[in-house]
This record gives sequence, structure tokens and C-alpha cells, in this order.
Amino acid sequence: MNEIRPRVTLVGAGPGDPELITLKGVLALNKADVVLYDALIDRALLNHAPGKAIKVFVGKRHGSRQHPQEDTNRLCVYYAQKYGHVVRLKGGDPFVFGRGAEELDFIHQFGITTDVVPGISSTVAVPASVGIPVTKRGVSESYWVITGTTSSGALSDDLKLASRSKATVVLLMGTRKLDEIVGIYEDEGLSDKAIAIIERGTTREEKVVAGTITDIQKKARENKIGAPAIIIIGEVVKESPQLRAIFEEVVCDHKLIS
Amino acid sequence: MNEIRPRVTLVGAGPGDPELITLKGVLALNKADVVLYDALIDRALLNHAPGKAIKVFVGKRHGSRQHPQEDTNRLCVYYAQKYGHVVRLKGGDPFVFGRGAEELDFIHQFGITTDVVPGISSTVAVPASVGIPVTKRGVSESYWVITGTTSSGALSDDLKLASRSKATVVLLMGTRKLDEIVGIYEDEGLSDKAIAIIERGTTREEKVVAGTITDIQKKARENKIGAPAIIIIGEVVKESPQLRAIFEEVVCDHKLIS
Repeated sequence: MNEIRPRVTLVGAGPGDPELITLKGVLALNKADVVLYDALIDRALLNHAPGKAIKVFVGKRHGSRQHPQEDTNRLCVYYAQKYGHVVRLKGGDPFVFGRGAEELDFIHQFGITTDVVPGISSTVAVPASVGIPVTKRGVSESYWVITGTTSSGALSDDLKLASRSKATVVLLMGTRKLDEIVGIYEDEGLSDKAIAIIERGTTREEKVVAGTITDIQKKARENKIGAPAIIIIGEVVKESPQLRAIFEEVVCDHKLIS
Repeated sequence: MNEIRPRVTLVGAGPGDPELITLKGVLALNKADVVLYDALIDRALLNHAPGKAIKVFVGKRHGSRQHPQEDTNRLCVYYAQKYGHVVRLKGGDPFVFGRGAEELDFIHQFGITTDVVPGISSTVAVPASVGIPVTKRGVSESYWVITGTTSSGALSDDLKLASRSKATVVLLMGTRKLDEIVGIYEDEGLSDKAIAIIERGTTREEKVVAGTITDIQKKARENKIGAPAIIIIGEVVKESPQLRAIFEEVVCDHKLIS
């Protein structure tokens, strides 16, 4: 019998489209003894792992967490010690609000070797998939990525300062806080700011709404926008060839009114 | 003779390590008639293209641009019209200060079909490769990505506001502006802020220095840090298991002095 060499590779699976995993991620899966995967993972990715590898679902199911974070960390250690190479497959990038650093801290306590394979983060790739560049010369020189759901469950305080900045604002996990987000921009007198919400970007179920702070709540309701989604706020939204027409209409409306 | 169907696929090659391209990027290269590639591209990636595909270098050479941006855009159109499928392979992600949107705008004028394949951006992957998470629960709820070199060549004004924010700050193309960056933080009384500079992250030539605003210029000089590099500023720098010791030493020094 071979000696078990426990190790864990944290792999970012990207924003949704299963072809957006990296080559390095595929190579890690090829050599997995166990794969622990989240709810947002396309099951097609599991085919990169050997047929005999153990595949364990550790995500949320029907709104309730089947395995809380602490359990998942313990499962990583358990399977690595028992079977060898565990690939922990996570949606997006493990280091962008993915608690990757916390998982590594936990696993290191047991003297287990770890590797990290970054993933395409939805922060940039999802806006790009609908033609929105987070930066563009003459339009935006920076972008600020903020969580809509901090560890306490609240929207990050950073959004207040961000709304006053010239940065493109990208909000993750913020769809359920849309009223609060709109409120922050309205309080700053920024009702005309361009905003887009993209649900399940890069997948076949992708839905997009775009408009201004003033009309986005209505549009999100009408189009039944839900999680997971990316919210992007700033002039770059108008740069999308496929969304441009929406803003030209708005201008026409204004002309009619004035 | 087959009819030529001109199309251009903009592919992000990732931060340096050639295995950090996406599967979709590899599949696009597999079907390339022509590949236009930048200076920062690992030549191993060209092996994903058919042997008979034309490979054209369009990057900087010896400090001077061999092909300015406008020429590259024209070459994309020229090769697509003449040979069919052009893959434009760019370092990092085409939409993060990569002028991807501008290239698409130009190509669309000629009625040529385009696709975009996102790449792993160095903004998150390079800090991660040295153990720095751009976000971590209880440490940072957001990160702000800023260019050190705007279209006018200057450091983005956004850095002033960013230095006052709680966001992790990630600066691209800022290595040559280190004195100016340090000056902004000193003016705000933030000399103790943790900072790291990572040159050629994820490649074999990777170099890292970390410290505080006070001592980073000296460390960068001593270690001959040059471009391309990522600068990351914020408490998350201290979260890296491999850099932690640097900051523990700093604390010891302070004790000795006081």
C-alpha cells in the first residue's frame, strides 16, 4: 500500500462557464483523490477528475447551508489525511471574498501542504461578458470591489466613500441590498449614475438589467433579478455596445420632458 | 478555396505562469489562423496554436514600442480580413487597464465579429501567489484597483482618496511612481501602513519585498525591484504566512527603540 501524502489544492473555478477554469486548475483536478465542490460549480468540471476520485458536495442546498464553513475546513483535513490529494473547488477566485485565506490558515495547523490556483473572478469577467469594461481610458482609472454581505451580514460601510469616488464600483453579494445601495447614492445626490445588475453572468441563465440609480429597482423587480449577481456602478456601464441603447433612450426621454 | 470569415478573439493570458490561461483561451488558440502576442506573454502559450498559424509579436522591445496601440488594432483587422481567425493574446485580463474595450470598438467599425476570453488578472492572483488575500473577514471588506500610469502618464488621482479609505489598495503599473505613492501616504500620516511590491508574480523570476510606507523605498532599491510589478497596500499584507515574520520584526524593533 502506498503511503498517504495529505495535500490540499484550493482551485478557483471561475464565474460560471466551465471553460473559464484555468489549465492549472484542470491539471490539479486530473490528479485529485477527492474533490470538494460548492453549489455554484458546473458539474461538468468534475469530469476533469479521475473517475475513481471521491466527489463531495459541500455547498448550500435549498437556502440552508448543508455544511457550514467550519465543517468544510474539517472535511478538507479529514479527506486529505485519509485519501491524499484533495481539490477544493470554489466558484470565482478563492481570495476574492472566498475565505481562501481562512481555509489555508485552518489546514496549515495540521501540517498539511497547500497550493492555491487562482480563478477568474466574476468581478471583472461578468461585466466584461456583457461588454462593460471596469476600466477605460478617459472614463475610469480605477475600480473598487466591495462585498454586499460582510461577516456581520451587513452591506460594507466602504460603499459610502466609494459612491463619492471616481472609481467604478463593483458589488458582490449585494442583490438583496439593492434598496440600501440605491439609498446611499440618492443621499449623495447621484440618482443619475449608471448601474447594471448581471445575474449568473457567463452562464446560459445570464440576465442583465441596466439603467440609472432612479429606475434600477423597478427594472430589477420586473425582470425578477436574483442572486448570484454582480452590481456595477459607474460611467463604464454606458460603454457596453449592447447596453448603449438603454442610455440613449434615457437621453431622449429627458429631451421630451424638458 | 474556402471563404475567409474574419473574426478576432481577445484572450487574456493571465499574470505570467503559462498554466494560468483558461481552458477557453486554449481552445481559442487551437483554432487560430493568426496569433498577435504581447511582450509579457510566455512563448509556451504559442504551442497551443496550430503549427501553421502565423505568430506576430506586437509588444514593446528594448523599451520602445515596436507597434503602438493604433498599429496593433490595424494589424488585428488586417490579419482577420486576410486569414480569418485572429487571436489577440494579452497579458493579464483584457478589460483591466488592458484597453480591451478600445480594441473592440476599433475592430467593430469594420463589421468583424469579436469574442472576449477573460484572463486571470494579476491584481488578485499575484498577491495571492505570495499569500496575501486582497480581502479577509475582519481585515478588509473591499479592494480598490488603481492604475499607476493613466493615459496622460500620471499616477491616478484616485489614490489620494483610496489612501484614506479602509480598502486594500492594489496598484498596477506604479513601480516607477513609488516615491510619489509613498509621499501620498506620508502626507496622510500613514507611514505605518503595510505595503508589498511583487515583481513578475507567478513566474520563476518572482521577487517580493514587504514592509511599511517608511522603509519600502529602501527595500525596493536594495532588491532592485523593477517593472512589471504589483503594489499592494493595507493590513492584508500582514496576513501572508510567508511575510508575517517581517512585521513581527518591525514590532520588535519598535520595542527596542522605545
